[in-house]
Amino acid sequence: VTRTLRDLGEFEVIRRLLAVTPAPSLRGPTAAGSESAADAIVVGAGDDAAILRLRGGHELVATTDTLLEAAHFRRDWIDAATLGARLAETNSSDLAAMAAEPRWALVSFGVRADHPVDDLLEIQNGLVGALAHHGAVVAGGNLTAVTGEEWMTMTLLGEIQAGRAWTRSGARPGDLLAVTGHPGRAGVGCALALELGAAAHEARWADLIEAWRAPRARVGLALALARTGAVTAAIDLSDGMSSDLEHLCEASGVGARLEAAAWPADTALESAAAALSRPADALRLGASDDYELILAIDPPGRAACERVAAQLGVPLAFLGAFTDAPDRLEWIGRDGSLRTIEPSGYDHFAGGAASG
Amino acid sequence: VTRTLRDLGEFEVIRRLLAVTPAPSLRGPTAAGSESAADAIVVGAGDDAAILRLRGGHELVATTDTLLEAAHFRRDWIDAATLGARLAETNSSDLAAMAAEPRWALVSFGVRADHPVDDLLEIQNGLVGALAHHGAVVAGGNLTAVTGEEWMTMTLLGEIQAGRAWTRSGARPGDLLAVTGHPGRAGVGCALALELGAAAHEARWADLIEAWRAPRARVGLALALARTGAVTAAIDLSDGMSSDLEHLCEASGVGARLEAAAWPADTALESAAAALSRPADALRLGASDDYELILAIDPPGRAACERVAAQLGVPLAFLGAFTDAPDRLEWIGRDGSLRTIEPSGYDHFAGGAASG
Repeated sequence: VTRTLRDLGEFEVIRRLLAVTPAPSLRGPTAAGSESAADAIVVGAGDDAAILRLRGGHELVATTDTLLEAAHFRRDWIDAATLGARLAETNSSDLAAMAAEPRWALVSFGVRADHPVDDLLEIQNGLVGALAHHGAVVAGGNLTAVTGEEWMTMTLLGEIQAGRAWTRSGARPGDLLAVTGHPGRAGVGCALALELGAAAHEARWADLIEAWRAPRARVGLALALARTGAVTAAIDLSDGMSSDLEHLCEASGVGARLEAAAWPADTALESAAAALSRPADALRLGASDDYELILAIDPPGRAACERVAAQLGVPLAFLGAFTDAPDRLEWIGRDGSLRTIEPSGYDHFAGGAASG
Repeated sequence: VTRTLRDLGEFEVIRRLLAVTPAPSLRGPTAAGSESAADAIVVGAGDDAAILRLRGGHELVATTDTLLEAAHFRRDWIDAATLGARLAETNSSDLAAMAAEPRWALVSFGVRADHPVDDLLEIQNGLVGALAHHGAVVAGGNLTAVTGEEWMTMTLLGEIQAGRAWTRSGARPGDLLAVTGHPGRAGVGCALALELGAAAHEARWADLIEAWRAPRARVGLALALARTGAVTAAIDLSDGMSSDLEHLCEASGVGARLEAAAWPADTALESAAAALSRPADALRLGASDDYELILAIDPPGRAACERVAAQLGVPLAFLGAFTDAPDRLEWIGRDGSLRTIEPSGYDHFAGGAASG
């Protein structure tokens, strides 16, 4: 028998959701000598509000993000656990971009009354597991019965030593421009699924589909890079390389120059570009929610950052530098030609994105 | 011309929403010598996450609540500013029930692309004004384009001196049971609107309709009562008197005995009960989201609590006492007869409530 939310009722389902806790092996590492996120919950879910204990000398870092059915996910494309993990990762990515440690999540579900409870528990399981990898736990939430699209909203609370957060506004002309991973892959994975359907599931494109379905926030790398002191600004890639880079440049009052030749080879993306009949560079720069990080790095700190990334096994590519031409994004092609880039991110209300 | 979200685009609408700030006269009082919530925002909306500075010796208090179109509001029954205020009040009420000070809100809107931007700004205006009354400000948020029902989720963050929070679990047998305001009014206001339609808008029922449309969280009273040290437990009334009282009793491992004769007279509720052909006491105890507080009070502190409530002009009624019979709710009628009460709150998934 499939039990639904309507069968079990609001309070019983909330009770079962809150009973999902991470396996001990999934609990994230905690800085030596400091309290785990779970132990720092003074009063948890089940009272009117949660009470949480921050560490002395730390500031609170807070972000919120929503996944909406049809707009951000389709249940025939993503399983429950991966969907739950995705909600945790998109929020964790925002904290990674501030170099903050994720600690506590409040989770709101808007689900239909005929939603099977086991599926909802699988979503919670995926979410709790992904949070645990980053050292965070669920501290509360809310359950609402919808009749239209389902949605999930997470507010993720983290901590950072006072004054140590990265912002979007710290980049200076001359700082190096680096990115983690392979920007553009998620957007290409999505385009493959949309345009090729089942034919997108070729082994050579598996990394692209995975980048789109199951992104991983760069929390561990961010915390390690923060210790180098070399990062001057950061933003996470949730709209697309050109669009998010423009946001960082605007906040910092700088421009940026990217060199095509400096981009890491990405044979998967390149073969997909051919199949989609689009230029690979446009796909690298265009609409894509990779949840990678764009970083501004003080030039003398480059080697230290490269060492940290290599130790953690995370690709870190130095693509160019920030300039003193506010809001101007320049692209140096493989032939040495220079052109300006128009940002091309995703606008949820326009319902699409311009090509990069 | 009516501009919609689709016309202006996601980023421009977010920019306009964030430009809504409280009038100086609406900014709430701040404890002497401490930083205002606005000043304690180290990094505000516009970066990947907000950075917030807690006061030394304080703990973080966090809650989240959603208003969903059709389930929690109908736009033909509530104007934009009142709707925005309602979202702020329902969340503030959870913090009031912990005796915490509201400080920072993260707000997520799920709205249709054809939603007029001016209306959304009015919602934000109502929300910002209501938060300001409680000393809180918006620190971030999110905007999502839905096609089905619209929804608004707020996560409200507050502060309390470490170890000073009220919980649901502190009530002891012998503690007095008090409530603020007039529980049941909101549920009756809703029933009037549903069953009588336009005929519900009689002057004699105006307080009931208002209790339902425009509740006010008891933040100021809670902070003042906390200073007496007499409150041992609290919960806010979001489901209904019998249901929420049961939650408090369950968490505290106690029972409660209510005396009909101790309830404050409520001629508006009584006349509505007659019009609705329902017993007034069932309406007092039944499904109702009043956002009042149920309090457990140490008997020697009663006079101090009554003084505080009188000073602030808030009705505070002592209805009975907590008992050592776990989870048992007893009702002593006006004739002295004793019966037990079955809780009758609202279950969103069942789509209705049992009669009290």
